Amino acid sequence: MFIESIEKSKKNLKISDKIKIFDTTLRDGEQSPGIALTVDEKIQIAKRLDNIGVNTIEIGFPAVSEGEKESARKITELEPKADLCGLARVVKSDLDALLDCDLSYVHTFIGSSQLHREYKLKMSKETVIEKAVEAVEYGKEHGLTVEFSAEDATRTDIDYLIELYKSVESAGADMINVPDTVGVLFPSATKILIERLKEEIKIPISVHCHNDFGLAVANSLAAIEAGANQSHLTINGIGERGGNASLEEFVISLIVAYGIKLNIDTKQLYNLSDYVSKVTGIKIPPNKPIVGGNAFAHESGIHVDGILKNAATYEPIAPELVGHSRKIALGKHTGASALKSKLNEYNISMDENQFCNVYDEIKALGDKGKTITDADLKAIAITVLGKSKEENIKLLGLTVVSGDSVSSTATVKLQINDEIKETSHIGVGPVDAALKAIEELVRDTIAIKLEEYNIEAITGGTDALAEVFVIISDDKDNKSTGRATKDDVIMASVEAIINSLNKILYIRDSLE
Amino acid sequence: MFIESIEKSKKNLKISDKIKIFDTTLRDGEQSPGIALTVDEKIQIAKRLDNIGVNTIEIGFPAVSEGEKESARKITELEPKADLCGLARVVKSDLDALLDCDLSYVHTFIGSSQLHREYKLKMSKETVIEKAVEAVEYGKEHGLTVEFSAEDATRTDIDYLIELYKSVESAGADMINVPDTVGVLFPSATKILIERLKEEIKIPISVHCHNDFGLAVANSLAAIEAGANQSHLTINGIGERGGNASLEEFVISLIVAYGIKLNIDTKQLYNLSDYVSKVTGIKIPPNKPIVGGNAFAHESGIHVDGILKNAATYEPIAPELVGHSRKIALGKHTGASALKSKLNEYNISMDENQFCNVYDEIKALGDKGKTITDADLKAIAITVLGKSKEENIKLLGLTVVSGDSVSSTATVKLQINDEIKETSHIGVGPVDAALKAIEELVRDTIAIKLEEYNIEAITGGTDALAEVFVIISDDKDNKSTGRATKDDVIMASVEAIINSLNKILYIRDSLE
Repeated sequence: MFIESIEKSKKNLKISDKIKIFDTTLRDGEQSPGIALTVDEKIQIAKRLDNIGVNTIEIGFPAVSEGEKESARKITELEPKADLCGLARVVKSDLDALLDCDLSYVHTFIGSSQLHREYKLKMSKETVIEKAVEAVEYGKEHGLTVEFSAEDATRTDIDYLIELYKSVESAGADMINVPDTVGVLFPSATKILIERLKEEIKIPISVHCHNDFGLAVANSLAAIEAGANQSHLTINGIGERGGNASLEEFVISLIVAYGIKLNIDTKQLYNLSDYVSKVTGIKIPPNKPIVGGNAFAHESGIHVDGILKNAATYEPIAPELVGHSRKIALGKHTGASALKSKLNEYNISMDENQFCNVYDEIKALGDKGKTITDADLKAIAITVLGKSKEENIKLLGLTVVSGDSVSSTATVKLQINDEIKETSHIGVGPVDAALKAIEELVRDTIAIKLEEYNIEAITGGTDALAEVFVIISDDKDNKSTGRATKDDVIMASVEAIINSLNKILYIRDSLE
Repeated sequence: MFIESIEKSKKNLKISDKIKIFDTTLRDGEQSPGIALTVDEKIQIAKRLDNIGVNTIEIGFPAVSEGEKESARKITELEPKADLCGLARVVKSDLDALLDCDLSYVHTFIGSSQLHREYKLKMSKETVIEKAVEAVEYGKEHGLTVEFSAEDATRTDIDYLIELYKSVESAGADMINVPDTVGVLFPSATKILIERLKEEIKIPISVHCHNDFGLAVANSLAAIEAGANQSHLTINGIGERGGNASLEEFVISLIVAYGIKLNIDTKQLYNLSDYVSKVTGIKIPPNKPIVGGNAFAHESGIHVDGILKNAATYEPIAPELVGHSRKIALGKHTGASALKSKLNEYNISMDENQFCNVYDEIKALGDKGKTITDADLKAIAITVLGKSKEENIKLLGLTVVSGDSVSSTATVKLQINDEIKETSHIGVGPVDAALKAIEELVRDTIAIKLEEYNIEAITGGTDALAEVFVIISDDKDNKSTGRATKDDVIMASVEAIINSLNKILYIRDSLE
């Protein structure tokens, strides 16, 4: 994929034959302020991580709470292929809590930087080494795989850091981990540090990068370039403060940019990311690499034109590689070829002049800051084609009664074409009651189904505006959106539904 | 800050004396699917970018639409300190559109990779060079500063890329830009590429990195290490697909990790990021570096303990540097020292036994997946201190009537301590009416003000659950939260308000 000189440079990298993927979504990820997973959610995530093929799953910090212990035990019972690891300070009771959950792998740590030793631990350099060695020995005596972290390693004096790591290596540690605890590394510095440690330490080296400056993935990759054997990662890069290195970004970079084979089922990445987002409540922004809503979305004319000719022009990988899908959006940057491809998709044909009119209207809507849906495009195209738009359904009256001792009741009066109809209906809430009444009234004209009902988050007083967005479908699989903004959430809901009803009727009438 | 060997390595970097910050939030950022800024919003962003001190603002792509031209003209009228640049294909009409807006700086581009030439442009290598040279010459003839981009440079054959760049250099271009159009670079490859170009090209070199693999900031920094003079950046890293290199991450990395002086007022970064998020609708996830809600938030016991002793233990920079603030959160990972510091803050003192009870309850709530607010902590502490909790206010009855021809009316019956009271009130919607009725009923007991009312986004049918979250305050500046989840949004709102009322009364009674 790359230009020649870069391809050649890859041969000089000291990349290890076997790179281990250590996932800490359930430990460092869950440590994020505001995240607290239930035992069941932790089990689900562990299962999915095991399914995609990570080597090690850090399932938590057993000494922290009874809930942590319970989830550790239940995940152990799953008997996954991945190694299950628990976090422990270099304290006997923390290691005991972990043994108590039948875990066979410990990630044990103590602060090594001057800041951590003097302010947090109030321990001498010698005491830190002593405690670290004791913990490693205790772990090995109890049959554990032991990975040792010098917390804040990247702000630790290098000679002392090497002394500490050598001591735990002699004590029997299986791997050392280098945490960039506050995320201050940059890639070329990471390389220097790992190369130096590789000269001194014979056991495998892992890195744990934080994302405070947005460099966690790049630092993890730089460590791999210098010969590190493992990186600690989290799904969606969740974690303390700016988060940890993102598993999906790291894995795809290694596979695609470096051309390295990993035993990871990348096709599950999008779904796993989505699941973790849902249960943690940490939403994925559209511009999140690999898994964000826009990762394979295109709107600007030049880009869509390229994508339609050959997707590789504006996509580094096919969306299917990560289980995602491509999206062509319409907006102010839409170009003629995107618009033509959309109109063809809907079997709408028009002359050049009509096309220009549709194009101008799309641009004008975009300039006003509107996002243009497919239903909007159809409506605009049909108007331009000379079929004038009229409202088939009008709201003539609405009354709702709701309370704690009466079922919510809505009375709705509609004009449907030239007929006036009225009915009442009960529902689980006033909006539900109103929707059911509308469905009943329009049944002879159109059978509709509410596909999506969404109140956009409203912040402000109780008299603030509520924006309601709905998607309805009919029995011929037409779909249409409706939107209304009102200070009364019930009125907004009814208006949005009637708005979408008119749109769907209009499209049916015009295209048939 | 770094360990010695890394500090030393910085001296070997070929960093330029003057690094230019080129912001493209208004062009590549706005090109994201779903974003469309109004002219006023573009002006506001341009003003703020100018205020923080960026060198160049790419204000849009004038040839795209009338709105783009209008905003370009209005921003020019502001006469900012920053250079104002517009995008143009290597076509006369695009350059004319830009001249028409009185812009003095053009960023002109044409695809250079085989993929772009063969599939998108259907042009020979020679034609691409010819058109690029013509555009540069036309720009220079019209007095423009000309920056030339070879689109998809990082997938272009290196010899041809150099030939193209040398041709535009000879034609008078002021700067060449190297776009990693689909984000396939990694930092060590970036360095090789820029070093090679530096050998051949004498005019300044800029980079434009996309974030498809999460490496845009790292690649921009690697380019700077190799002697590049400028990077294209966007606020919050918004942009096509996975976005562009984030301005705030790039700037803070350079200043803090590399120790480079930049004329950027970093204290405005948080507010600028927040503003761009609001007007673009692209939300910032809590784990966004530098500006996310959790960037300086701490919950886990070990971290909070460190922060309270010396914030540098778990923070790479002081939050004030970027205009942000520190947050100590409570949850399942809360440790004893965080809890003690919070209780001290509220002047609540207790013995060791009582403290352990509060601590256990916080952990148990955290294990259930709950986020613990300060009001929750106070309520728990007071309960443990032996003051039993009882509900002062109970909802006995609620009826609302709403519609399009009658003002929303709520009738509310409450038990307030031992007294039963009932009233009705009108409002702009049913929730507003119910709140006003409650305010009236409790007025003799407590004067409350609704500080925040938030319906959490609900997706699903109209019978899906609505989660309402409120914050109320009293005249003594106590604040309390309330939360309720119901299938009826009105009932959920009333329950949340009564829930918060009981909490605030409880805190007043207990602490006075």
